[in-house]
Amino acid sequence: MEGTLRKGGKMKISVVENVLKANDAVAHENRRRLEAAGVRALNMMSAPGSGKTTLLHETIATLQNDLRFAVLVGDLQTTRDAERLGDLDAQVTQINTGRGCHLDATQVTQGLETLDLEGLDFLIIENVGNMVCPAGFDLGEHLRVILLSVPEGDDKVAKYPTLFRPADVILLTKVDLLGILDFDVSRVEEDLSHINTRAPLLRISSKTGEGMDAWLNWLRGQKVRS
Amino acid sequence: MEGTLRKGGKMKISVVENVLKANDAVAHENRRRLEAAGVRALNMMSAPGSGKTTLLHETIATLQNDLRFAVLVGDLQTTRDAERLGDLDAQVTQINTGRGCHLDATQVTQGLETLDLEGLDFLIIENVGNMVCPAGFDLGEHLRVILLSVPEGDDKVAKYPTLFRPADVILLTKVDLLGILDFDVSRVEEDLSHINTRAPLLRISSKTGEGMDAWLNWLRGQKVRS
Repeated sequence: MEGTLRKGGKMKISVVENVLKANDAVAHENRRRLEAAGVRALNMMSAPGSGKTTLLHETIATLQNDLRFAVLVGDLQTTRDAERLGDLDAQVTQINTGRGCHLDATQVTQGLETLDLEGLDFLIIENVGNMVCPAGFDLGEHLRVILLSVPEGDDKVAKYPTLFRPADVILLTKVDLLGILDFDVSRVEEDLSHINTRAPLLRISSKTGEGMDAWLNWLRGQKVRS
Repeated sequence: MEGTLRKGGKMKISVVENVLKANDAVAHENRRRLEAAGVRALNMMSAPGSGKTTLLHETIATLQNDLRFAVLVGDLQTTRDAERLGDLDAQVTQINTGRGCHLDATQVTQGLETLDLEGLDFLIIENVGNMVCPAGFDLGEHLRVILLSVPEGDDKVAKYPTLFRPADVILLTKVDLLGILDFDVSRVEEDLSHINTRAPLLRISSKTGEGMDAWLNWLRGQKVRS
């Protein structure tokens, strides 16, 4: 057993590769199933406390008369995030990962079993709050929504490129704090210019409502069915 | 290969257990080595952007005339955090983990090779910003310092108990934002009362200096040599 580890950790690496391959196959099947139902799936990722649940609540509350949403919420423990979305006209399922630092495709498959996909426009998957591990796992989503909150600091794009590189849209949240905290948006733009020039960078505040229109328009534009 | 995964993931679990066992043995050796040199080691953990590097800078800048510090800084990429500590009278080594979501004991052993432990009072290990993975890995530290910043929200103790349960001190940072953001400190205290009644909860602000004395006193009290 010890010997296994001494061999330059090769066994560990091959297991990790197999886990990723198996995950990708399940993710592919999730995506196929969602597409067959005309559902667009978003994987929302960020550090803990960047405002994912609050943004989701505002987003669905604003759009629920026109669009049908379902949400899968990933957390280690507690159903607090799912409860925060409980008053919305949307299907919400909490997935508890225990000690798991990210959602994987199989957990999403299990989550899909709890949902009625009929007539649904969007599935939003709120991943575990973590800037590292979730980025490595395809869940079967079509789009990656990455949040970065102003209090986290303007150095995060450079420090977590695996999260920001594949982003389809980047939401700079809590911008109402830009005047209060040291945060240089041009530093984020500069870092993004090296790794992701494709994703729009939208400045939003769930508190003041700033930028919400741009985000909601982006989201509306991703709908499969017209 | 596929078959391995289908067996209820047992192989994956056994590899993870072996990795943890091997890590613990290396951590034990790190601790022994630090103790032989009279060095007290702190493992500092939190979400990204909670203020670890800023606090470290203020702490060492204030105490460096009386106490000798060394710092190991963990990050996926960049040497930005180490550079931010570059003007201090302290030994600073950056450890880049690549895609690794936490430091492990072997990386700390390698870090120790770069340091002169002679006459050192404290080794502070700034872990990768992540509330999940670092908590599972003993690095050979004596004490765990956990930061929670006000902008992250008052629900984090309940959501990340594996991080807060073994804490020796919990620093509620950016308390200058308590009047601006919704954050109920009593909710944190209530959640802590179920999992960790041992660690002091200190309210601090690197910006205003509030609570820094209590933190510095706590730290002084952890010194091995008098």
